[in-house]
Amino acid sequence: MRRVGILLSGRGSNFEAIARNVRAGRLDAEIAVVISNRAEAPGVETARSLGLTALAIPSRGLEREAYDQKLIEALKQHGVELVVLAGYMRLLSPAFIREFPMRIVNIHPSLLPAFPGLDAQHQAFDYGVRVSGCTVHFVDEHLDHGPIILQSAVEVAADDTAETLSARILAEEHKIYSEAIGIVLSGAFRIDGRRVKLENRNHAS
Amino acid sequence: MRRVGILLSGRGSNFEAIARNVRAGRLDAEIAVVISNRAEAPGVETARSLGLTALAIPSRGLEREAYDQKLIEALKQHGVELVVLAGYMRLLSPAFIREFPMRIVNIHPSLLPAFPGLDAQHQAFDYGVRVSGCTVHFVDEHLDHGPIILQSAVEVAADDTAETLSARILAEEHKIYSEAIGIVLSGAFRIDGRRVKLENRNHAS
Repeated sequence: MRRVGILLSGRGSNFEAIARNVRAGRLDAEIAVVISNRAEAPGVETARSLGLTALAIPSRGLEREAYDQKLIEALKQHGVELVVLAGYMRLLSPAFIREFPMRIVNIHPSLLPAFPGLDAQHQAFDYGVRVSGCTVHFVDEHLDHGPIILQSAVEVAADDTAETLSARILAEEHKIYSEAIGIVLSGAFRIDGRRVKLENRNHAS
Repeated sequence: MRRVGILLSGRGSNFEAIARNVRAGRLDAEIAVVISNRAEAPGVETARSLGLTALAIPSRGLEREAYDQKLIEALKQHGVELVVLAGYMRLLSPAFIREFPMRIVNIHPSLLPAFPGLDAQHQAFDYGVRVSGCTVHFVDEHLDHGPIILQSAVEVAADDTAETLSARILAEEHKIYSEAIGIVLSGAFRIDGRRVKLENRNHAS
């Protein structure tokens, strides 16, 4: 499995990091298509400037089920095996998730299950945690909830603001998302309950 | 402020670590009294063997409010300024918490707010997190909820069991609890909302 489809709604800085890693040969994947639900998303232009196939499929005015059917068709047309969410600001329908079982990944800027939902970095900062981070997980039918593939911890510094913390978390996102995608594409894992067991790998090292 | 009172219900391995750090001069505090709500708690014997004042005040059969009044009296008799929970398996009454405002600390074996309550290490392991850890926090009237003083992250290894993970978390608990007590006793912090702002200190370093 190598063919990846990216869904985004904005700039997609995680998409940019993934594209860089693919181009540099650090991630053995092929970005088959980039799809935005917003025609004006900067990520579409970025994708095209990188010579990638990028589609804008506007979601405005469409029911989720109807829109997701259009997405499914476009992804299948491009032979997408793994769907990668990169700042895609819509909830996926159960029908979409059933179409790609354990084949949709997302990244969230907190150590889930802490601080799901929007603005996780500010939630964590205001809560006063000393450690936050980011999580790459499979997408299931519950928000920010599927089995966790990788997490990376980021310490909160005494002089941090929510913004400086967010920036350090984003830098970690750019590292672990490509690593997690590589793990999923390699198939070198098993899912036991909701634990993702990596093969030939030790996450303390 | 230097006089610390320890509450425990069992062995109190965190109490042992604190006592070692006090004895070694790594923590500028005086353990004024160790109190157990169980006469048979091994921590009582340990405390006495270390030459510390240790009381067993059995809680069996007593209403929480009535028992907590006995605790308050004993702690005040011994001039306790900071109450340190070390495996104390009872909820404290609001009256007790009002008696020691921001003067009660607890340690919890997860990165709060994730996995509050019992068996946090197993909760985290079964959830499949890649990073867990421990949290020292002020005790307020909600379970495992008060402002966070320190946290330490512990990575989950691919070959971990809940037991090996718990052991690594416990080793971190033994480090950060004394450090957090030192911060509270030093008074070098401010509380802003629920954020504990440490002075002259940078937690990323």
